[in-house]
Amino acid sequence: MIRAKVIGNLYATCKDRGLEGKKLLLVQPVSKDGRPKGRPLVAVDSTGSGYDEEVILVRGKEAAFPFLPQEVPTDLGAVGIIDCVTWNRDAE
Amino acid sequence: MIRAKVIGNLYATCKDRGLEGKKLLLVQPVSKDGRPKGRPLVAVDSTGSGYDEEVILVRGKEAAFPFLPQEVPTDLGAVGIIDCVTWNRDAE
Amino acid sequence: MIRAKVIGNLYATCKDRGLEGKKLLLVQPVSKDGRPKGRPLVAVDSTGSGYDEEVILVRGKEAAFPFLPQEVPTDLGAVGIIDCVTWNRDAE
Amino acid sequence: MIRAKVIGNLYATCKDRGLEGKKLLLVQPVSKDGRPKGRPLVAVDSTGSGYDEEVILVRGKEAAFPFLPQEVPTDLGAVGIIDCVTWNRDAE
Amino acid sequence: MIRAKVIGNLYATCKDRGLEGKKLLLVQPVSKDGRPKGRPLVAVDSTGSGYDEEVILVRGKEAAFPFLPQEVPTDLGAVGIIDCVTWNRDAE
Repeated sequence: MIRAKVIGNLYATCKDRGLEGKKLLLVQPVSKDGRPKGRPLVAVDSTGSGYDEEVILVRGKEAAFPFLPQEVPTDLGAVGIIDCVTWNRDAE
Repeated sequence: MIRAKVIGNLYATCKDRGLEGKKLLLVQPVSKDGRPKGRPLVAVDSTGSGYDEEVILVRGKEAAFPFLPQEVPTDLGAVGIIDCVTWNRDAE
Repeated sequence: MIRAKVIGNLYATCKDRGLEGKKLLLVQPVSKDGRPKGRPLVAVDSTGSGYDEEVILVRGKEAAFPFLPQEVPTDLGAVGIIDCVTWNRDAE
Repeated sequence: MIRAKVIGNLYATCKDRGLEGKKLLLVQPVSKDGRPKGRPLVAVDSTGSGYDEEVILVRGKEAAFPFLPQEVPTDLGAVGIIDCVTWNRDAE
Repeated sequence: MIRAKVIGNLYATCKDRGLEGKKLLLVQPVSKDGRPKGRPLVAVDSTGSGYDEEVILVRGKEAAFPFLPQEVPTDLGAVGIIDCVTWNRDAE
């Protein structure tokens, strides 16, 4: 799982039925200290996260677990809103 | 999931039975502002997307979900045509 | 899925039972215009593809779909031989 | 699987139900000789590993195996605490 | 699947039950001509491969297939010992 910041939204009228009614987030992975790192991705939201919040992203089949038994065709999902992170700067 | 632009098509006569009748797209992943980024990939289409349209690509097993219960041997699928994207330039 | 050229073969006497009788290909991913890109990989063949042919590679669990119900321990499979590709050079 | 060092913890009140009660670790992948390599990731712990310990990380669906039959939406899990590693420096 | 050389072993007393009794290998992916490429990984052995042998590595869920019906939490497995590889140097 990786940390990312919600930086926008994405709209698609014509899409697979499994994605209907799902909120699509544009998310920017961040490094330990919260700076953007890598390219933005598209994630399905299941926690009610919104703009500028930091979330936990899960990849692969697991991204669709919050919607079971519905089979949602996604490979990236926001499954938690991060409150805080503790880490050791020496490990960098 | 990532965003990509449809840049071409791909034809294969001799292929696995699961891919028969499936439209194969040559897609180019794009960055937030729509510029090409990374190398082109091959995706199976399930939304009727065509040349020059921007689509949502899903990787892994989920790419075959739109064709269930058929088992399509693909790891990349276009599952939505993007209408618009809103994002915050400050997050770049 | 990605495009690749078959550049060789690989032989292993001592292997998992699921791989017995399967043809192992050494494949080189290629870019849009057919030039080698990235490092060579090992794929299981299910389409009768041979030396110097361009194939469609599928990753993950889907690579084993052509062999169902047998459980083949592979994460990369050649599922189609490419006849031709049409693409727009402007998108590069 | 890869080796990583536990460098911190991560707290999220609002999260998917499948993650409730799970300890979230901030882990730093390391190279053969224990130096940090690549960016930190978020993993679910199932072995009681703690700060500064070196763990084995497993990716994908397998990360949720220790919690079966519960379906935990994670793609990275710490499944073992490393005691020691033997390796040949010549192979570097 | 990729080719790799076994360069060491890894020991973990405290680990997930699914990994008990499994031999953990430290493996170094190699390029076509057998030179090390990329960083070393941790794989579960199912073929009796040993130090300095070249093996076929499979990623993802398939890495656990040799142990079915047991659910082994691994995402990388050595499923074959390579005898020889034939390839065309022109393709490089």
